[in-house]
Amino acid sequence: MNIHDVDARLADILRDRRRRLAEIFAAPVVLWSGRRSPRNFAANTFPFRASSHFLYFAGLPLENAAICLESGQLTLFIDDPSPSHTLWHGETPAKEEIAQKIGADAVLPMAELPAHLAGVATIPVQDAATWTEQTQLLDRWVLPERPLEGIDLELAKAIVTLRLIHDAGALAELRKAAAVTINAHKAGMAATRKAKTEADIRAAMEGVIIAENMSCAYASIVTIHGEVLHSDRYHNKIQAGNLVLADVGTETATGWAADVTRTWAVTGKFSSTQRDIYDVVLAAHDACIAKVSPGVEYRDLHFLAATTIAEGLVDLGILQGNVEDLVERDIHALFFPHGVGHLLGLDVHDMEDLGDLAGYEPGRTRSDRFGLGYLRLDRPLRPGMLVTIEPGFYQVPAILNNPEVRTAYQDAVNWERLMQFADVRGIRIEDDVLVTEAGSEVLTAALPTKAEDIEQLVRG
Amino acid sequence: MNIHDVDARLADILRDRRRRLAEIFAAPVVLWSGRRSPRNFAANTFPFRASSHFLYFAGLPLENAAICLESGQLTLFIDDPSPSHTLWHGETPAKEEIAQKIGADAVLPMAELPAHLAGVATIPVQDAATWTEQTQLLDRWVLPERPLEGIDLELAKAIVTLRLIHDAGALAELRKAAAVTINAHKAGMAATRKAKTEADIRAAMEGVIIAENMSCAYASIVTIHGEVLHSDRYHNKIQAGNLVLADVGTETATGWAADVTRTWAVTGKFSSTQRDIYDVVLAAHDACIAKVSPGVEYRDLHFLAATTIAEGLVDLGILQGNVEDLVERDIHALFFPHGVGHLLGLDVHDMEDLGDLAGYEPGRTRSDRFGLGYLRLDRPLRPGMLVTIEPGFYQVPAILNNPEVRTAYQDAVNWERLMQFADVRGIRIEDDVLVTEAGSEVLTAALPTKAEDIEQLVRG
Repeated sequence: MNIHDVDARLADILRDRRRRLAEIFAAPVVLWSGRRSPRNFAANTFPFRASSHFLYFAGLPLENAAICLESGQLTLFIDDPSPSHTLWHGETPAKEEIAQKIGADAVLPMAELPAHLAGVATIPVQDAATWTEQTQLLDRWVLPERPLEGIDLELAKAIVTLRLIHDAGALAELRKAAAVTINAHKAGMAATRKAKTEADIRAAMEGVIIAENMSCAYASIVTIHGEVLHSDRYHNKIQAGNLVLADVGTETATGWAADVTRTWAVTGKFSSTQRDIYDVVLAAHDACIAKVSPGVEYRDLHFLAATTIAEGLVDLGILQGNVEDLVERDIHALFFPHGVGHLLGLDVHDMEDLGDLAGYEPGRTRSDRFGLGYLRLDRPLRPGMLVTIEPGFYQVPAILNNPEVRTAYQDAVNWERLMQFADVRGIRIEDDVLVTEAGSEVLTAALPTKAEDIEQLVRG
Repeated sequence: MNIHDVDARLADILRDRRRRLAEIFAAPVVLWSGRRSPRNFAANTFPFRASSHFLYFAGLPLENAAICLESGQLTLFIDDPSPSHTLWHGETPAKEEIAQKIGADAVLPMAELPAHLAGVATIPVQDAATWTEQTQLLDRWVLPERPLEGIDLELAKAIVTLRLIHDAGALAELRKAAAVTINAHKAGMAATRKAKTEADIRAAMEGVIIAENMSCAYASIVTIHGEVLHSDRYHNKIQAGNLVLADVGTETATGWAADVTRTWAVTGKFSSTQRDIYDVVLAAHDACIAKVSPGVEYRDLHFLAATTIAEGLVDLGILQGNVEDLVERDIHALFFPHGVGHLLGLDVHDMEDLGDLAGYEPGRTRSDRFGLGYLRLDRPLRPGMLVTIEPGFYQVPAILNNPEVRTAYQDAVNWERLMQFADVRGIRIEDDVLVTEAGSEVLTAALPTKAEDIEQLVRG
């Protein structure tokens, strides 16, 4: 990003975050930004992605930098570029200018960092060069996959307290990510009629994101095999009768994410069976969003989605029996094996680097119940939280062809009726929903969800 | 990629490579493919990129796999996916099917690998999780940045011998990469008239690559600041009078790269000063390509480019003096501070993970002479080598405003005349040139280089 484009309010936003951290965490904190990860050789790297915790408090994706936070004061550690760096990568802003943009109280070269590490708490970054440096400089293990302990764990809890509730600065970025993502999905729908393969649709969608000088917040899913939950292959040919499931989200230059899924028919017209299931998933989506409000348990939204899907499938004759009993038996998880959504912020699964510390209310742990093991969020909702709502219906061969599953649910599923829905491999509808004092605001509401509106966008 | 799309000839290509390795290297070899590198949390990764050495002998980008090569025999080590992997990522081909596609003589689970490591040579992969595993399993340091020693160094030399000379299988992939890259550049030129920012042009170019289900071989350079040699920012607005320098290359699904640069005027019409310098750079480009032939020293091509550029700049009145003397004084490096090109293959700087082992003929080392420190290739050319030819002209402030440089070259540069060329920040013209028995073949020849043809493509 261009330093001259940095919002003048950034320094105030960051000062406020530091002040709030200092109110709940007393020890000094050092957060590293990280380095580029090598791709096939040292000079050919993946794009730089700064640590999300660093971004939260430092605001800018500075490479190989660190910040020290103490009593609300910020010291930035960063080196001036070498002459050869300037030759290859151009003039970069002076560290004093960067410090001013982020409201740093002092700026020092990285060589000064070791003298500022006594008693500091930190969070491991993701790249090996930097977590090795963290481990060496702090003389204790600082590894991404290692459970946090001591002051690092306390710091993580304090950061979760802050990052769970988005401030105005965060929301401005999250709205930008949502807006670009909406345009990407519209471009994907519009490109479908001429697309020969999934890759053609992906190119249209990611092209919108690249043209905005932003990046993808996660590996795009653009597939006619919607039943593959995290498909990252794009080679399949598009054919009449297919549904396209596209789960594509933007990340802004300072790291804030959107996460949106739509499913459409490649011809622009759902078949009657596709439309039936689409409306079941949409009913679950709408019911959950209608319930989003402070105090509501997110887990209850998950079961609301499950119940709505089960009801819909009973109405369609795919399931048989009492809906409450069916949900009690986890029958919905046959077709909806993941959670109804997750936190969203600087990470698409926000703060998932901290395990379930952010997603699960203290004292709660993941269930091993079928379909609940993938529930990534189990907290009461509070104003300022941003969550996804993303119910779905999938015919996953690994589940539906499992003999144990078929035996266990023999009585509850009308397998013959299900076969009539063979053209519905996977449908998901996902929006980004902000919890507000008054209830909720769907940040991605400008992208239609109704079947007719989607059909209209595809047909153009 | 889709296993069913794998070329039936792949197994034969790979068998031949193994046989040739066995002829020059006796010890058993184990090559790891590597793992995904985390982006902001463990489950949100950068795209997988298999180790190039693994790809050379195993042919397919298999994640977390290894191959053992011994006496021309191949044993593939790979695990069947876990049930949860199948749920999230779909059905993957059975390891027996993969083994058949690559002509493996045996296939075993990864748990069997430790029993096959006695006396093996290896090459470090780039991701930390895997080089840590290599280090632990082999009980010696195996680190990407550590100079190779012992049998690992001997293996690296043997692999260089093979990978330097591209076989028919490699060339088929390299031609695919070149073809898609040509289309990407044409799309970038065509998109320029409507582009508002560099990012718009980048989106058009990368969109072509994504739509072919391929990836970028390196971070695209698409900039109006061509003087920033490895610019990876795309925020600048496009304005009449600007040149766009685009250095964008495709990588095929099995890892083979193209590397192409074109420079064009955003209006579709070079100014007279831009055209003058463009033609100087093109003259250097054409002169070097005309000389590519077996036995020619690549270093001599570098000096041919330097001489051609110096001559052109003398003709334009920017330099003054005897051309030979000027080149002797490295004056060309003021405006052409990098080498004329490099090896190209599975890596955009092929085998650069091995340091200068591939780029420099045994016994030769990099010069510290101004402009030669970045010469990445210093070998006599041989049939089957693929090199880039990429002369350029840049006005780099860090060089031209350096008081020492200005003093040293005070007499040789007409600084006032140079100021008349202020609208030429950077021009580079780069093609991928295969050394053949008869001389050379430009794999990217279908993308025009002549100024008029480029202007035509931009204006449409």
